[in-house]
Amino acid sequence: MPVNFSLPSADRLFPVSGVSLGVAAAGIRKPGRTDLLLMTLAEGTQVAGVFTQNRFCAAPVLVARQHLSHHAGVRALVVNTGNANAGTGERGLVDARRTCTEVARLLGIAPEQVLPFSTGVIMEPLPVERLAAGLPDCLASSREHNWLAAARAIMTTDTVPKAASRQVEIGGETVTLTGIAKGSGMIHPDMATMLAFVATDANLPRALMDDALRYAVARSFNAITVDGDTSTNDALMLAATGLSRAPEIIDASSAGYRVFRDALTDLAVELAQAIIRDGEGATKFITVRVEGGNTSVECRKVAYAIAHSPLVKTAFFASDPNLGRILAAIGYAGVSDLDVGRVDLYLDDVLVAQHGGRHPAYQEADGQRIMRQSEITVRVVLNRGGEQATVWTCDLSHEYVTINAEYRT
Amino acid sequence: MPVNFSLPSADRLFPVSGVSLGVAAAGIRKPGRTDLLLMTLAEGTQVAGVFTQNRFCAAPVLVARQHLSHHAGVRALVVNTGNANAGTGERGLVDARRTCTEVARLLGIAPEQVLPFSTGVIMEPLPVERLAAGLPDCLASSREHNWLAAARAIMTTDTVPKAASRQVEIGGETVTLTGIAKGSGMIHPDMATMLAFVATDANLPRALMDDALRYAVARSFNAITVDGDTSTNDALMLAATGLSRAPEIIDASSAGYRVFRDALTDLAVELAQAIIRDGEGATKFITVRVEGGNTSVECRKVAYAIAHSPLVKTAFFASDPNLGRILAAIGYAGVSDLDVGRVDLYLDDVLVAQHGGRHPAYQEADGQRIMRQSEITVRVVLNRGGEQATVWTCDLSHEYVTINAEYRT
Repeated sequence: MPVNFSLPSADRLFPVSGVSLGVAAAGIRKPGRTDLLLMTLAEGTQVAGVFTQNRFCAAPVLVARQHLSHHAGVRALVVNTGNANAGTGERGLVDARRTCTEVARLLGIAPEQVLPFSTGVIMEPLPVERLAAGLPDCLASSREHNWLAAARAIMTTDTVPKAASRQVEIGGETVTLTGIAKGSGMIHPDMATMLAFVATDANLPRALMDDALRYAVARSFNAITVDGDTSTNDALMLAATGLSRAPEIIDASSAGYRVFRDALTDLAVELAQAIIRDGEGATKFITVRVEGGNTSVECRKVAYAIAHSPLVKTAFFASDPNLGRILAAIGYAGVSDLDVGRVDLYLDDVLVAQHGGRHPAYQEADGQRIMRQSEITVRVVLNRGGEQATVWTCDLSHEYVTINAEYRT
Repeated sequence: MPVNFSLPSADRLFPVSGVSLGVAAAGIRKPGRTDLLLMTLAEGTQVAGVFTQNRFCAAPVLVARQHLSHHAGVRALVVNTGNANAGTGERGLVDARRTCTEVARLLGIAPEQVLPFSTGVIMEPLPVERLAAGLPDCLASSREHNWLAAARAIMTTDTVPKAASRQVEIGGETVTLTGIAKGSGMIHPDMATMLAFVATDANLPRALMDDALRYAVARSFNAITVDGDTSTNDALMLAATGLSRAPEIIDASSAGYRVFRDALTDLAVELAQAIIRDGEGATKFITVRVEGGNTSVECRKVAYAIAHSPLVKTAFFASDPNLGRILAAIGYAGVSDLDVGRVDLYLDDVLVAQHGGRHPAYQEADGQRIMRQSEITVRVVLNRGGEQATVWTCDLSHEYVTINAEYRT
């Protein structure tokens, strides 16, 4: 059960002119479940992307990155679940390229105009024949209104589909942004999360798309963790068809750029938070906010030390205000000159520790009350500067162990 | 249930001349359990130690480090469980010093000759009155043959006491080393583990003790992890009474020094491995060996990425050869120029992946067979240099979550 998550309704997911989505049950891993998505893009669509920093990045990531650099004009994205095509060596690359060739043949475009994405089990060969056989069904079902079906098609251990939409005005005209994401475990993105696809009808040059994407990712997908495991297949793609009536966004100092960037960030935060709300076994949604640091980097270090600590995460699961574990995590976060005598710790509005020690007025009952909530904010004030960072995470429950012990069965 | 752990019998724990141990039930946290240890040292005993690098280090760690630097001649170590006296600010320091004063008064020595140690819940005030009231019982029960009782007295979530002994010959005379350790969770030592105390009747200068201790720690306590959480209270102390008949060890190039150092390392490895065998909820003992690296630092990075991954650890718990998770961990370990196309992966003697991809001859059944064992070696060959590193860890089970969700109840 995801934490305080509302399923998006199909009519609140605005279609993006020039973007069509079709799905199929190709039997990649198991028969009878939708596991293939084909996303086609109108001619002239610009595509920007960020990919995993994992050195063992998957074959489709290598191919997608290569095709993106060809500037051949991306016209299709193809996504399979059930198999990550990672740790598959040369054969994995052949299979990922073959996937592109099959899509290209079907659509009458060049293989370099196709970007492939995979998610699922690592180190097993991709059943590329079954994948290819499913593509005609994808094309047959392709529609602009298919975002929710697309979000369902890319799920693995996800219990809910993740999709979000925004409409903003630029130059008096409506611009739409709609995106989907998947991911529940192996979530500690180091550029982007497992898989996310955002499309817009805005019209802006590729360089500004890159800028906006990096800005949004730093504040969303790169600020979440379920288990500290960075996936081999992370990718976030942004496609801009330019088919809205809004004027072209020309430079980064324009009002239109800021409106677009902020809408993209807002959308990305909603999708990234949805991944945490649906984190494997999650029963709590935790915001870790670290303030008063010398640099945002050190604030992130402290926030992630807390967010990754299995001891902190099990205490949240148990609703046990065993908050000394948070101090311990702050202490080993790697801020070598940290003066712990200046550190304050809050749980929501409750001051738990001041000047590095338990606050005299702190009552166990107050901590207990906050810990019972399904949404909790841990606020750490380092009192040594003006920088801050926020990270979102979930608790570590029995269900997490069950899901990951039984993932392949 | 610890993994393949044999309880040490009292008669195999050789007493160390000049070292006496007494225990008491002081009711630090709960009544009726032994929770206080007093270890007294003969005059002239040299003491060396390594302490946690956690910035939130506990008050007793600060006081012990300070007293050790006084060179006043340490005569007593006092250890309580049930309360870590960490995250307790100024009051914590007052309580740790008060503990030393009470011991000093009882023994007729100076407070600076006492080193205090605490382990247990963080951020709760130390009940120093109850601790002081328990000290006379410690003194009354103090004997040289009390090592096993001492090992029991310092347990927290440990399910078994951890103690080990070695006897070696130096200059034709027997030298004894005996040590105890505790720890089961919050184990990712960054200098030493939770608490370990080793005594010897060897005669060697403090500088050589420091050298031998650092050598041993790098190969034992600094090569283990249960949950990646570095404790606020880690400390490893080595006391040398010099009361054996063996000649003094004068320099680091002598045969006697190497014999002593290797015996100390061997002892430390046994104690460190005992902590992993008794890791919270452990059902498997995992050795992660990374070879062929450019530096031992990068080998450690890769080994710890594998050993910390919740996904890898839950796969071990399930005996599921979902070994792609190991490749993913290698990929995000932070070796930025790693060529994954050269990486080989073995599970015991089974070649799982070669040149970065699944080996054609690898059969799931072979992986399954190894994964069912209670002791497993993961061997990663980076094929880029001649360095190596070994790390020991355990799996992540339901029991881990249960223990840490219910730690304070």
